Amino acid sequence: MIQEHNKNIEKLIEMVKGVSTCMLITNEKNDGNLSGRPMSISKIDNDGMMWFFTKASSYKVDEIEENKKVSIAITNESSNNYLMINGLAKLVKDKTKMKELWSSILKAWFPLGLDDPDMILIKVTPSEVNYWDGSSSKMVVLFHILKAIVTGKEFEEGKEGKINL
Amino acid sequence: MIQEHNKNIEKLIEMVKGVSTCMLITNEKNDGNLSGRPMSISKIDNDGMMWFFTKASSYKVDEIEENKKVSIAITNESSNNYLMINGLAKLVKDKTKMKELWSSILKAWFPLGLDDPDMILIKVTPSEVNYWDGSSSKMVVLFHILKAIVTGKEFEEGKEGKINL
Repeated sequence: MIQEHNKNIEKLIEMVKGVSTCMLITNEKNDGNLSGRPMSISKIDNDGMMWFFTKASSYKVDEIEENKKVSIAITNESSNNYLMINGLAKLVKDKTKMKELWSSILKAWFPLGLDDPDMILIKVTPSEVNYWDGSSSKMVVLFHILKAIVTGKEFEEGKEGKINL
Repeated sequence: MIQEHNKNIEKLIEMVKGVSTCMLITNEKNDGNLSGRPMSISKIDNDGMMWFFTKASSYKVDEIEENKKVSIAITNESSNNYLMINGLAKLVKDKTKMKELWSSILKAWFPLGLDDPDMILIKVTPSEVNYWDGSSSKMVVLFHILKAIVTGKEFEEGKEGKINL
């Protein structure tokens, strides 16, 4: 069981590592709709936790304070990787962690750097992960599609799986 | 007002047309979680309606029958286009429409073609659209990011907008 769990986490990390931007989906506070915005994934830990930098004053932080259920959608056409992750978000104001995760590219959003008082981390603990891994390249999938058309047999859409964490 | 509406629809169509795969997000029937899966967008109409082919027997169809609120997430890193669309889904079993939307690539999922009795269309009427359009190429955005780092000024993240339909 532990081995299976570790293998699942490894698969998740492998798939997320090639992705720089995902859609972080939260729940609107009033109308029960979803709200989403593209976010850079700063890091995925060895235990599958995902980290994001954001502004403490942003609306998504209010939303997470009210409802910590979030989802992460990834539709990376170029790598042909597709992930839908459900999880729980936690707001983390930890200078040591921020320092560990900091990258100079973040200065574009936080010109004051690590001294920005409006900086906060979002940590997402995945609870359910669905992925569609169309093999390592788009070409391979295209070949499968074409083969299915030729043979009249149904296309097996990559290796689809649900990772239980 | 009508002109503004038409301009918004045009912008939506322009952004969606370059995308072949999105994450179609529905509501799980039991646990209040979200479920998502990559889906090919068959067409976006001139009035912004989005069409998908699917199997009538699939679980997502059950979900839509119970709750027609859906979302469409697009995170297209290569074109640097990011969209979050909320809308209402309708299941449509209309042979004429299927014929109009049919493309031979769909044979990979429907080997029987238009005669497949398990074929159904999902039509999504967008109600709220958020987009992040990082200009026409990734390079331009990278330049903005670098410029912000150099000047210490905050990065203006592309042209962000909410399209009200």
